Amino acid sequence: VYPINPKADLINNFKAYPSITACPEVPEIAIFVIPSKACVATAEECGKKGVRGIIIISAGFKESGESEGIERERAIIEIGKKYNMRILGPNVLGVMTPTFNCTFANQSPNKGSIAFLSQSGAMLTAILDWSFQNNIGFSNFISLGNKCDVHEVELIQEVCEDENTKVILLYLESVIDGQAFLDQIPEACRKKPIIILKSGTSQLGASAASSHTGALAGNDIAFDLAFAKTGVIRSKTMDELFSLARLFSNTNFANLKPKQQRKFVIVTNAGGPGIVATDAFENYGVNLCVPSEPLKKLLQEKLPAEASVKNPIDVIGDAPPKRYQDSMEICFQDEEVDGCLVLVTPQAQTKPIEVAQMCVEMQKRYPSKLIVSAFMGGDTMLEPAKILANGGISNYPFPEPAIQALRAVCDYANVRLSPAKKPACKDLCGFTAEKVQRVQQIFHEVRQDKRTVLLSYETSEIFSLINVEAPKTKLATSQMEASQLAEQIGFPVVMKIVSPQIMHKSDCGGVLIGIKNAEEAAQGFDTIMNNARTRGPAGALLKGVEIQQMVNFNAKKKNTEMIVGMNRDPNFGPMIMVGQGGIFANYIKDVSFELGLDYDEEIALKQLQKTKIYSILEGVRGQPKSDIKGLISILVKLSQLVVKFPEINELDLNPILVFTEEEGISAIDIKIVINDPNAKIGFRSSSL
Amino acid sequence: VYPINPKADLINNFKAYPSITACPEVPEIAIFVIPSKACVATAEECGKKGVRGIIIISAGFKESGESEGIERERAIIEIGKKYNMRILGPNVLGVMTPTFNCTFANQSPNKGSIAFLSQSGAMLTAILDWSFQNNIGFSNFISLGNKCDVHEVELIQEVCEDENTKVILLYLESVIDGQAFLDQIPEACRKKPIIILKSGTSQLGASAASSHTGALAGNDIAFDLAFAKTGVIRSKTMDELFSLARLFSNTNFANLKPKQQRKFVIVTNAGGPGIVATDAFENYGVNLCVPSEPLKKLLQEKLPAEASVKNPIDVIGDAPPKRYQDSMEICFQDEEVDGCLVLVTPQAQTKPIEVAQMCVEMQKRYPSKLIVSAFMGGDTMLEPAKILANGGISNYPFPEPAIQALRAVCDYANVRLSPAKKPACKDLCGFTAEKVQRVQQIFHEVRQDKRTVLLSYETSEIFSLINVEAPKTKLATSQMEASQLAEQIGFPVVMKIVSPQIMHKSDCGGVLIGIKNAEEAAQGFDTIMNNARTRGPAGALLKGVEIQQMVNFNAKKKNTEMIVGMNRDPNFGPMIMVGQGGIFANYIKDVSFELGLDYDEEIALKQLQKTKIYSILEGVRGQPKSDIKGLISILVKLSQLVVKFPEINELDLNPILVFTEEEGISAIDIKIVINDPNAKIGFRSSSL
Repeated sequence: VYPINPKADLINNFKAYPSITACPEVPEIAIFVIPSKACVATAEECGKKGVRGIIIISAGFKESGESEGIERERAIIEIGKKYNMRILGPNVLGVMTPTFNCTFANQSPNKGSIAFLSQSGAMLTAILDWSFQNNIGFSNFISLGNKCDVHEVELIQEVCEDENTKVILLYLESVIDGQAFLDQIPEACRKKPIIILKSGTSQLGASAASSHTGALAGNDIAFDLAFAKTGVIRSKTMDELFSLARLFSNTNFANLKPKQQRKFVIVTNAGGPGIVATDAFENYGVNLCVPSEPLKKLLQEKLPAEASVKNPIDVIGDAPPKRYQDSMEICFQDEEVDGCLVLVTPQAQTKPIEVAQMCVEMQKRYPSKLIVSAFMGGDTMLEPAKILANGGISNYPFPEPAIQALRAVCDYANVRLSPAKKPACKDLCGFTAEKVQRVQQIFHEVRQDKRTVLLSYETSEIFSLINVEAPKTKLATSQMEASQLAEQIGFPVVMKIVSPQIMHKSDCGGVLIGIKNAEEAAQGFDTIMNNARTRGPAGALLKGVEIQQMVNFNAKKKNTEMIVGMNRDPNFGPMIMVGQGGIFANYIKDVSFELGLDYDEEIALKQLQKTKIYSILEGVRGQPKSDIKGLISILVKLSQLVVKFPEINELDLNPILVFTEEEGISAIDIKIVINDPNAKIGFRSSSL
Repeated sequence: VYPINPKADLINNFKAYPSITACPEVPEIAIFVIPSKACVATAEECGKKGVRGIIIISAGFKESGESEGIERERAIIEIGKKYNMRILGPNVLGVMTPTFNCTFANQSPNKGSIAFLSQSGAMLTAILDWSFQNNIGFSNFISLGNKCDVHEVELIQEVCEDENTKVILLYLESVIDGQAFLDQIPEACRKKPIIILKSGTSQLGASAASSHTGALAGNDIAFDLAFAKTGVIRSKTMDELFSLARLFSNTNFANLKPKQQRKFVIVTNAGGPGIVATDAFENYGVNLCVPSEPLKKLLQEKLPAEASVKNPIDVIGDAPPKRYQDSMEICFQDEEVDGCLVLVTPQAQTKPIEVAQMCVEMQKRYPSKLIVSAFMGGDTMLEPAKILANGGISNYPFPEPAIQALRAVCDYANVRLSPAKKPACKDLCGFTAEKVQRVQQIFHEVRQDKRTVLLSYETSEIFSLINVEAPKTKLATSQMEASQLAEQIGFPVVMKIVSPQIMHKSDCGGVLIGIKNAEEAAQGFDTIMNNARTRGPAGALLKGVEIQQMVNFNAKKKNTEMIVGMNRDPNFGPMIMVGQGGIFANYIKDVSFELGLDYDEEIALKQLQKTKIYSILEGVRGQPKSDIKGLISILVKLSQLVVKFPEINELDLNPILVFTEEEGISAIDIKIVINDPNAKIGFRSSSL
């Protein structure tokens, strides 16, 4: 360590140097605890000297919200790039790793197996203080600060390789690089469990997007999807974050069993808490073991007659520690039983300290079984709690958080069992260079027209290029053209107003269906134009009336109106929506979302299964099955379309009519909105 | 106190008597701590002596599950009735009230203002132990035990009148008398807040009822409805129970403001926890105050430039206690601000002890403002936590539980503001003695026929008696009868199979619509009977085909398919369901529930508004408004019908077609199931 200070000769018995330049060797890392004004020049000096990394603890940068600070941070980033020098911060509390400790907190954290990365320094100081009281230790304790260069994804990858770390915790308010997150985190999650408390869910405000998809997606849904997709466990509260961390740091992930197959027993000395725990197992979807007859028999032999050998196993109020031990031992011999929740209430005979010691002993003897406990009480349970913490048993003050943590551990087992990366889905759109060029040409024409919303004949062409069934559509700008085009397409036809300002065409009488001949088409043209003029938004530009092939869906055996949509999340890119469609889609809200990157048939099916309408598509109450395969294929094609063309900002199909498997699907109303090239794009589309 | 023991002369320096009879005066209460076998004879002795109440701590009764114990409990109940002597227990831990202490726990609880009643004795011992550590005190601490005589409702009423009690907490596994609960608890809730942890939500298993309503209602929904109706706050976890109790016992309910108008500020010395708290306010639906410009200006004058004067008010990391105080003082001068969440993280300048003292001081000076806090940390925050607890400030380890408790307090304010009992809704059915007799006659005929399901012509008559619009219906048992009845009713008609075994008539081809003439009616009869024979359940009894007036709903301006239903909860009686109907009702699950007792138009509207379909009934996207008033009137009529006739076990209207306000409503398919008089009725219908 070389202290650098222009005024001092000796700092903490280390010889001090007046500047980095004067330092006798090139330091690996320079830590800045200097006024923010001096940081830029000092960073430059570090760069020249050949320092590989700097940690800027100093505040007074972007977080100040003032132009001076923002400029200062920009300058530092430039210097970092110039000298290929990495920067952590500015505005960090510090860093503590197993080999390195530099924080400005009063105390060093206890050694342990939790890596905690936090975007908020105050969160770190509070948690640090709290951890001493709660027997929690850390392997890494890192403040992320302004994340001007080094960000969460790199640090997660770093601590993931650290052998002292068993579980990675983060407090985040934002994600800097959504693409890197989606690319890198899945692999990290398969090595170590990652639990994130993401705040700021209420800060973003309602999305300003005009699409159905935008209106139906919550502020924060993309984070939920990204966490689920990568395998991150999302914690909803600060309490839950550490409640989960406790169990994860004590869990042996060598023996993995999928969640569906894991079964637990409850051993309790009191009925009431046993019932509370049973409720919680059901609420959190964690399986309780139904004891087999032989298992019950073995328990009956050891336990008194009044005990219950169902699950919960009630060893009753006068249970000595031996009775707990017998029950657990018998259960752990059973392959069906994967773990045990031990509930202890203060009772004269129970001796919680001995029960705690026994639990620690049992966990050592049965490392593949997961023991968690809730020793309920106050002072009586302090000593048992310490024994359990030191012995690697996760203990909770009440049953519910124990079971909540069990759920997360079971969910995480499923993450470990699933591959980090699947082979990319094959190109269902059949994109040739020609097709791509043609789509780009259409977008070019739209922009030349100073529009962002595509007209139906444009969307119709794009959909035919990617082989998605949609009715033939042409644009008529006069009565006569309307009759002629209608005859070309073939009767019956549907007629719709074409106007960039009219979102919901039927609301203003802008749609006519079942037009049967040329005369009706001509009349229809006038009716629609008049309706749009009188009932549409004032000053709307009316480009004409679309003439569209009419799908005679009354002749179909089954017809379900669905909605399919896409909008772009600024962090994680395209989001695909599917659900119950029709004009009431926004009210019924039976839709589900998924990220559009690395989207495939399997993901699409799971997404669809999250909607209530899915069971109706499957065919219930004697109805035939709908063309679910076709719908899934369309979902995948659309995801590929919007990934290929980042210009597409929004996409809405509502309704898209799903018929039976023989009869297929028809997208009746398609809306594509491309970005304004002059506007900023949130998501880095170039890397897609 | 007179100890009674056949063998001892002196117990704890009190002179002991060999029997109750030998006792020199009549004791007010006798407490049994004797073998269960001796209890019956001793109770008899007490009764003879004239004792008014007994508390049976002894176990070995119904809870044992053995016939001997069950019989013993029955005998005790009989003795109680005979001598008009009240019994608490058996199987209780004991009772502690401000004037009376008799428990077999090691320690007496601290004095405080929480009354805790628990059905589980072990829960009491655990909570007692825990309460010492958490600075929690109790006014009453009562074990309910087997509730063979005295039950929760009576005890709630009792502690409600106790002036030492500010808040009433219960742990319950069941409610003995649902009727008494619904009758008495609303008034009690207006005096003292009642918070209940009701467990056993997963124990009941799926309802065996065959109706839509039964299938769609969860196991535990009646408890949710009963708690909401009476004003009870339901806690989901043990932790939450005490988290809420803490704030309730510190809240001054003299100044009540409805939840919607209450606004809070957050004062914090750290950004991260401030964001976490903001999220929680939004998630829990508690209002944050948006500071007015004058308020912001006042704050700016007192706070440093880097502080944020928006809400959260960030007094930043170097905040001394004075800065917290200034912010709170300024905010509390503002009428808009009803309370403050104080967030403190360990920071060098902050001095949490002084901030805690300041909070206590401020609460005294501003009794109408509610202060809650989260002093986050460990050992640093122990002393502040004690100061806060003693000073009547509710402090939490993290922000989220503080805001969860705030929500409950705000919700409870709304309970206090609403009347306990509304005047009964007027009889919309116009029940005359004649009408009642006629309905009873129909039920009599159904029973004579050994049926429980009413046929359509029977439901049709009942609905016309209570003035609910339903199509005219007659039963045809032959081709010829079908033609004749169809002509009487007038074409077009609908034809439906009549069979007690066929629930979903259209699934087996048992429904034909749009029958236009006598010939079609004759043919239809054969078709339906054949379909039912070949595609219906084997061996189904086919009584014939109903001929029903066909509502030409294609001619209506608007037509929404709804479902209305009723089933009976064993605890709380009739439950009304309303929501989106049609053959997919069970899959879409857009329904809401309400208890049928004291049901009126206002309740019906609120219930309807909980469904998504409500906004569509109201008229969106240019559609006309549906006959919501008519639907509400039907809901009220049906509630009155099922309350009047407890024989009605289930009732389903699916679909009930709701048209525009001019066009009204039509109940297309009605199912009424009456009870089997030989089967047990769970709910005490006699008192309805």
